[in-house]
Amino acid sequence: MEKKGLLLVVSGFSGAGKGTLMKELLDHYDNYALSVSATTRAPREGELYGREYFFLKREEFLRLIEEDALYEYAEYAGNYYGTPRQYVDEKLAEGLDVILEIEVQGAEKIKKQFPDTVLIFVTPPSADELKRRLVGRGTETAEKIDKRLKRAVEEAKYMPFYDYILVNDDLAESTVRLHDIISSEHAVSARNRDFILQITDELKIVTNEKGE
Amino acid sequence: MEKKGLLLVVSGFSGAGKGTLMKELLDHYDNYALSVSATTRAPREGELYGREYFFLKREEFLRLIEEDALYEYAEYAGNYYGTPRQYVDEKLAEGLDVILEIEVQGAEKIKKQFPDTVLIFVTPPSADELKRRLVGRGTETAEKIDKRLKRAVEEAKYMPFYDYILVNDDLAESTVRLHDIISSEHAVSARNRDFILQITDELKIVTNEKGE
Repeated sequence: MEKKGLLLVVSGFSGAGKGTLMKELLDHYDNYALSVSATTRAPREGELYGREYFFLKREEFLRLIEEDALYEYAEYAGNYYGTPRQYVDEKLAEGLDVILEIEVQGAEKIKKQFPDTVLIFVTPPSADELKRRLVGRGTETAEKIDKRLKRAVEEAKYMPFYDYILVNDDLAESTVRLHDIISSEHAVSARNRDFILQITDELKIVTNEKGE
Repeated sequence: MEKKGLLLVVSGFSGAGKGTLMKELLDHYDNYALSVSATTRAPREGELYGREYFFLKREEFLRLIEEDALYEYAEYAGNYYGTPRQYVDEKLAEGLDVILEIEVQGAEKIKKQFPDTVLIFVTPPSADELKRRLVGRGTETAEKIDKRLKRAVEEAKYMPFYDYILVNDDLAESTVRLHDIISSEHAVSARNRDFILQITDELKIVTNEKGE
């Protein structure tokens, strides 16, 4: 019914499985575009410009801020992160549902600018499970895990401001549920004003067609 | 995550295919209960007490009103129609999602009493299609069809107050979409306060467990 795509924000605890979930969603459905953030942090091994991030020099990032070319940005651990407007706008206009995978503060900024944005928070079923997953990676020091869990305590405060809570227990199931949530949002009444007005007009015309 | 069932209202134009849609939904999924209304109108051929309606005498219906045993009721074409509380409450407590298939005015009354209720409006894709379906039944006089279309004009005014607009084009597809809408509503943040509070507490505990 609706032509323009939806703007979606997906956030969640580090270790909740957001990244894998996004990959699955994009692999299985063709109505999504994942926004690529810009950052001043250095690329890690295996990361590609334009895939994980647009890796920019500090002065390039500051120019984007100056030109108002970012929907939101924040400084985090000494580096800038932000959402370039152009890609998002283009994909929305193409009718794709655009997903921003961003932090809780960024999510808040986006929602304030665009109250129609759908905010989805991805979480494991329990804190124990979150810890298990972080430890299970086997790549992180105890100190780093502790830092992520402490950050999770802070992030949890934002959960009530999200529209949906997606408990990521089983990856395949969660992918379908995420897709269902987004599809259902397209059916929300407030997003279908044009259809409502149209069928209302049509009904009046059809009712006045006598003798058919 | 949530134990108690959801209260749902499904309304729509006569000819939108609500009845068939409800039947399909109940046939395919086992988490639903369809509320049976009480009425003072006489049963039509093939209708069964407790299946289509609880067919009551006028004085029985008035007693239900007096005992405050109805969630809502209305008089329509000289007969009373209402939603008995008991069945709805029992099924919700069992964790089932309870569907009230009721008229727009009844929907409004339910939403006022229970703002958490999810209202879904079922519509054909166009007024022409609605007319085609009504004519296609082959059982109704031109006068009756005209009356239904005029009523549809009135009902359309309520569409903006519904949470979702379900365009019933293909029955099988619409059944799945209806189920998806309801499933997604279970993930709505405000319906998961207990989970949010619980994982927030858990995270604090896990973060304070040192030396693990």
